[in-house]
Amino acid sequence: MRNLKLTVAYDGGAYHGFQRQRDESLPTIQGMLESGWSRLVGERVKVIGAGRTDAGVHADGQVVNFRTESRAIPAARVPYAMNSVLPRDIRVIGCEEAPFDFHAQYDALSKRYVYRMLNLPFPLPRFRHDTYFVPKPLDTEAMNRAAQALVGRHDFAAFTEVRQVAGSTVRHMFRCAVEREGGIVKVIVEADGFLYHMVRAIAGTLLKVGDGSQPPAWVEEVLQSGDRRLAGPTLPGKGLVLESIKYP
Amino acid sequence: MRNLKLTVAYDGGAYHGFQRQRDESLPTIQGMLESGWSRLVGERVKVIGAGRTDAGVHADGQVVNFRTESRAIPAARVPYAMNSVLPRDIRVIGCEEAPFDFHAQYDALSKRYVYRMLNLPFPLPRFRHDTYFVPKPLDTEAMNRAAQALVGRHDFAAFTEVRQVAGSTVRHMFRCAVEREGGIVKVIVEADGFLYHMVRAIAGTLLKVGDGSQPPAWVEEVLQSGDRRLAGPTLPGKGLVLESIKYP
Repeated sequence: MRNLKLTVAYDGGAYHGFQRQRDESLPTIQGMLESGWSRLVGERVKVIGAGRTDAGVHADGQVVNFRTESRAIPAARVPYAMNSVLPRDIRVIGCEEAPFDFHAQYDALSKRYVYRMLNLPFPLPRFRHDTYFVPKPLDTEAMNRAAQALVGRHDFAAFTEVRQVAGSTVRHMFRCAVEREGGIVKVIVEADGFLYHMVRAIAGTLLKVGDGSQPPAWVEEVLQSGDRRLAGPTLPGKGLVLESIKYP
Repeated sequence: MRNLKLTVAYDGGAYHGFQRQRDESLPTIQGMLESGWSRLVGERVKVIGAGRTDAGVHADGQVVNFRTESRAIPAARVPYAMNSVLPRDIRVIGCEEAPFDFHAQYDALSKRYVYRMLNLPFPLPRFRHDTYFVPKPLDTEAMNRAAQALVGRHDFAAFTEVRQVAGSTVRHMFRCAVEREGGIVKVIVEADGFLYHMVRAIAGTLLKVGDGSQPPAWVEEVLQSGDRRLAGPTLPGKGLVLESIKYP
């Protein structure tokens, strides 16, 4: 039995998220990877993803693993083999043999997501698939200052739909920063884990600081409150990219 | 009579280039702008573009002008009005009243294009619409050194399909540079004008230096030869973006 660790990149625009849905006719990243492997070697496998990205969310460096009986394809050839059967909006960009007990989700030390806003008076169509358009000028320095309140070990209940979370809402945020590159404003977050909709709610909250509706200190108040109703809106999935996962 | 100057951005993926085609059923940027204005004010106009981008080529800052009898929409409202009738892959991002004799193409002092390559071992799907994928590692320093031979006033016959060009093949290149940003390699060119397929042929020629098939000095030889057969291939349109136009 092998345990294969794959790095996967995708444009999430056409998918109902990473995770297979009860309605199997809805396209998902997990479903495409599982049926891809099945087409290659005729074996059903269960693909485990490090981050269960929502509908419309993209990945430049998702990590998955699955156990397989097949030895037909050496790890170094797996990306080429998989890419020959996958649609062009999903690419396997790396593969290695992992220890038998490696688990892409449980073994992750940290995940890095980036939320991108296009902050110009009018949108540039080239960017419409992977940025959220914000015409009002954003004060990215204020956003970045506000973001620092989220760094560290905190209860992030204010930034998730609590009812949907089983267990603790405490996470360790290693980095939370806002940077501008021309017309693109990036909210960069790195943590040991993320709650449901957490990055998009953080981006929506920092947006309210950026457009001047709230002062930077308000973000710490929202965090302390633990009250989702106080935070900003959950921004659309299309602006979010899962960039990378760290393992020991 | 007004002469309106518009700045236009588009994703060229769905279009047969900027210029209206003999077969009017083929979608073009010019055609969409003209029918957009016609829908707004009921008047047929002729839109003149600064750069006649080819099929699949994008723009973040194309400039166009057209003369109109209609005074119904003030210049500052034109982007909003036009965007309400244009498809989402074309956006008007600026508009001003221009002098009656302003001509978007003839009055341009310089145009800036950027050709983007995605230079990683495997493609990232997010970038598939506006980059050309090159898996072989590129030596961007060698490419940039080679590019300097193209700066200045030269006969660029080696970088175009000469038979299609009426008149001189001499152009003044103000800047030609190659820069890397992570996995993206950008070929940046700024000149007083470009010949048919010129930027894409330059990008294809510099690519041959980047991947080691040719030494940097070869680019100057190609330029001197004036022979299109010696240069590199014309790369696909989807990697090219018309970024901006300068006027006096």
